[in-house]
This record gives sequence, structure tokens and C-alpha cells, in this order.
Amino acid sequence: MHPPTRPEIEAAAARIRPFVRRTPAMRLAADQLGLPCDVILKLELLQATGSFKARGAFNRMLSAEVPAAGVVTASGGNHGAAVAHAARVLGHRAEVFCPVATPAAKAARIEAAGAVLHRIGAAYDEARIASEARAAETGATIVHAYDQPEVLAGQGTVGLELQEDAPEAGEVLVAVGGGGLIGGIAASYAGRGATVVAVEPERCPALHLALREGRPVPAPVGGIAADSLGARQVGALAFAVARQHVAASLLVPDAAIRDAQRRLWDALRLVAEPGGAAALAALACGAWVPAEGVRVAVVLCGSNADPADFLAA
Amino acid sequence: MHPPTRPEIEAAAARIRPFVRRTPAMRLAADQLGLPCDVILKLELLQATGSFKARGAFNRMLSAEVPAAGVVTASGGNHGAAVAHAARVLGHRAEVFCPVATPAAKAARIEAAGAVLHRIGAAYDEARIASEARAAETGATIVHAYDQPEVLAGQGTVGLELQEDAPEAGEVLVAVGGGGLIGGIAASYAGRGATVVAVEPERCPALHLALREGRPVPAPVGGIAADSLGARQVGALAFAVARQHVAASLLVPDAAIRDAQRRLWDALRLVAEPGGAAALAALACGAWVPAEGVRVAVVLCGSNADPADFLAA
Repeated sequence: MHPPTRPEIEAAAARIRPFVRRTPAMRLAADQLGLPCDVILKLELLQATGSFKARGAFNRMLSAEVPAAGVVTASGGNHGAAVAHAARVLGHRAEVFCPVATPAAKAARIEAAGAVLHRIGAAYDEARIASEARAAETGATIVHAYDQPEVLAGQGTVGLELQEDAPEAGEVLVAVGGGGLIGGIAASYAGRGATVVAVEPERCPALHLALREGRPVPAPVGGIAADSLGARQVGALAFAVARQHVAASLLVPDAAIRDAQRRLWDALRLVAEPGGAAALAALACGAWVPAEGVRVAVVLCGSNADPADFLAA
Repeated sequence: MHPPTRPEIEAAAARIRPFVRRTPAMRLAADQLGLPCDVILKLELLQATGSFKARGAFNRMLSAEVPAAGVVTASGGNHGAAVAHAARVLGHRAEVFCPVATPAAKAARIEAAGAVLHRIGAAYDEARIASEARAAETGATIVHAYDQPEVLAGQGTVGLELQEDAPEAGEVLVAVGGGGLIGGIAASYAGRGATVVAVEPERCPALHLALREGRPVPAPVGGIAADSLGARQVGALAFAVARQHVAASLLVPDAAIRDAQRRLWDALRLVAEPGGAAALAALACGAWVPAEGVRVAVVLCGSNADPADFLAA
């Protein structure tokens, strides 16, 4: 098991192209979002199923021999929705294990796609353990939420698109939960001279702690982005990529994430979930200050929120 | 007073560039939105102030000598929000006349930008009469919601971007209220071989009736898109362009507009207002069937809605 190479990410792009969306990159002047600098937004929150997870789910399933028992996965919600959707499109059975706290918007997507939804445990990690037991029982193919090479390769196609559509981006801010997205994106940018920066909520610092300790370690899981960024421990593959190719690891408070969600709504009428807005929060709150003359890109990676959550609060 | 020429639209693009956003065009396979064909969505609902109106408002103000009395306008809401925003950015006073039924989301944008908001009359046309009286009184520059050459030229920059970003589009569906957007877009496409199609709600058929009668005539104003598409009579400039360069004029029922709003939410988590979704409705409900082998583009032109409106209904 090794992190994806660029040819593997390019192969993933060709494999998943009929099933996923090429999401736009939008350039915005600083004043349009009240930021200290111009920005490129990668609108990955317009992806099928409402997050980048569709890319990895399709790539994993299209790369595997899926038995009649189908696929099984564990997820805070977005990955489960992506697996359920991909399974329906590709004609597989799917079982999805989610923590009991998974938001209604995500649970509804999973069930609407015809997957069997099991709710178990307070956080992702308990659902993961249950899903692995279930896979051992049925023989179903596991589609891991982040720690499989095919999953990273799928998520890395976000990076390929950004390189084509915004070649001027010299810095790329990416939110991190288990690390599938940043692992794929950083691998896609390896050796290309851009700085890839990890952003985590203060209350979900799995990659941050792993980089400090020199290995993936158990981390706290909490706060408003826990359902999408709440991995107990960062994936081994993502960690290997991050150690080599991620230039900085930032933490942002929940209040900055909420502020970023509101900015996206006020300025663009975009609905971003907390995890989907976390990377923008780092720029807006000053946790990341772009280098002089360098253009920064921000990946907005998930939209599965109820606008009432941030309009009311 | 004549419809804008292509050089005038190109000049408008250069003039407004520092102030407005270049909105992305997104390609979607048919199944992604449950449509009978692949589609290109021009995401103009991501424009500053939530609609294309920012383009025309900036172009008109940047082309005029604005006196100390500032600018005055009448609007169902979106144009007023755009004028209020442009006036603030450019340092002018602004007064905006809106019908009493203008949605809260739009009134809030107008006042947040520091404009004086007057609510008067049941529909746009009464607000327009009041705004013209006010301009005569103060000497303020009128920024018409649709029937000025500089306004059409500004809106036409949507067409220039679409031609650059989606040159394969052979048909372009555009919603019509007073006709500023379609007038500008059709002028931008004149002589370029693409088919521009007008879409109106059945209950706001101003262009449809004008084309049937051979001249702008008073039309009914009603239904769910009235606040954005509810002009009493199509503009003379837009009519002149449409007669020459608009290939078809379609009417869609309110139910189809609501359905299009829901599709955009379900598939993309995009918030479109009824007027902003009307062009998509024509494709989704079968009012428009693209010619064999021709790629269709749809302009999504406004986002100033409360998601609760279409999620609840």
C-alpha cells in the first residue's frame, strides 16, 4: 500500500470521468469576500453527492472486484453518501455505518440512494470498527473513507483539475479529516512547486498531532466540523504524503469556520458545511497569510449543511 | 438610443472588470440533473449582489456623469441591490424604489448597502413611475432596470464570457423580465451562429406578448417569479434585439420553475430564486428540446431566495 503516484491519479481521472463532475475554479478579488488577498475558489462543493468524496468512492469501486455482497463503509456522512450513490450507479449493494450524530442531510442522502444505513457509536471510529466486522461477515468490499490508495487517487483528481484551471495558484489550502483529500491533492502537486497547506479545526487536530509526534496518533474529535473532519487518527497514506509534501499544518477555531460559512452565504449564496468552509477560514481569520505575490487557492469541499445552521447561529 | 453593438459590450466588459465577478460555466452530464441532455450551466447566480444585475448597474454608472444627488432606480429587488452596491463602491448616493412585495432577502441587501429604500406600489411599474418623479425632483441619474443601452451592454458581458468559456454552446436559454439580460446576451451572440431562446413564466409573458403583437404591450404580472421577472412591458431595446436575434420565446408554468429550483438544490446545493431557475425549467419540463447534436447552455441568473421557500413548499 503506497500513496498514489501522478500516473495513478491521472488514471483515476480517466476512470471516474463519466461519473463525476468537473467542478469550476472561480477567481475572486479580495474585496468580494472581505479577504486580505485575491483568491481562487475550487468549487468542489458542487460535486455529485455534495462533496469530493464521490471521486474516491467511484475510483475505489471501479478499481475493485466487487462481490455480490457489495460494498461496506463507515463514514461521518459525506463518504457514506458518496459510496451509496456510486454503488447505486454501478449496481452494487451498499451498507453504510455512521455515528448516531451524523446530520440528517447526510443520512437522507445515504438512504435516498438505496443503501442500508446503520447508525452506531458516538464518532466515526466506532462506526469504522462495526463496518469492518460486517465486511468480515459478508465478504463485502471495504471502501475506506480515506486510507486506501484508490481513494486518495480519486480525491487527487481535484488537484489535477486545479492545476489545469488555475495554473497560477502557488498555494493551496485544503481541509483535513482523515487526510484522503489532502493526501490526494498533495500527491498530485508533488514536485510542481506549489505549497499545499493543511487546515484542521482546533477540535479535530489529527494531522497536526501526527506531524508533531512523527506518526499518526489518536486525537480529540469535537466541534462543529466533527461529522466531516472527525477522524480519530489520520490515515497512514495521507500521513506519508503530508510529511513530504504538505508545507504547513494550521488549526482554526470553530468561530472562524462559522464566519467562513457566513461569508460564503453572504457573498455567493453558497451553502458550505463546516468542514467545507474550514480551509477558507484559515485565510479569513489570518491563520494563513499568503506569501507576497503568490496567488492562493482554497478548496471548498462540502455542501451538506442546512443553511439554517449558520443563518440562525 | 440603440441596442449595444459588440464593441460596446466589449468596452463594458473592460469597464466593469474590476468590480464584478467572472462567473464559471459548469458542464454537467444529463443524469447529474435528471435532464434529457447534457448541459452547460452559466453560474451567474454567483455574481456580486446575487444576480447579473451588478454588471449593468456598474456599466451604467461608470458611463454616466453622476451628480451629487446620486442615482435613483426602481426595481423588483435584484436591480435595486445591484445599484445600491455599485453606488456604495463608487461613492454615490442611491435611492431605490421597490414594490411593497419585494422579498425580504432583496430589501435587506439594498439597505445593507446604504441606499435609501422606498417601498411603493403592488408591482415594479408603480415603483418605476415614482422613481422617475423622484429623479425629476432631485436631478439624480436614473439607472434603469433594463431599458438603457449601457445596462444592456453590461448584461451582455455574460454572453462574452459564455462564448469564451463554452464555445461549443449552440443554444442559450435565458430568462426574461424586462429584457435587459436577453437583450445584452442576444446582442453579444448576434451573427455568431448560436440560437438564443427566451424563457418567461406563463404569468409574466411580457416579451412573448410583444413578439406576438409586433410591439411592446402591457402584460400580466404574477406568479412566483414576479419580483424578478415581473416587468409590465418589455423594454424597447430588448424588444428590438429579440425581434432580430432571439429564435424562440417560451413560457413555463410556475410548477416547472419550482421543480427547477429543487433540482438545483438537490443536485448542486445551489440556491436559485424563481427567476434564476426559469431558464432551466424550460429544459427540465420539455418546453425546450435541443436540436440533435447541439449543446445547450442555461444561464442561472439569480440567487436571492430563502431556501425555505422551495424546501418547504
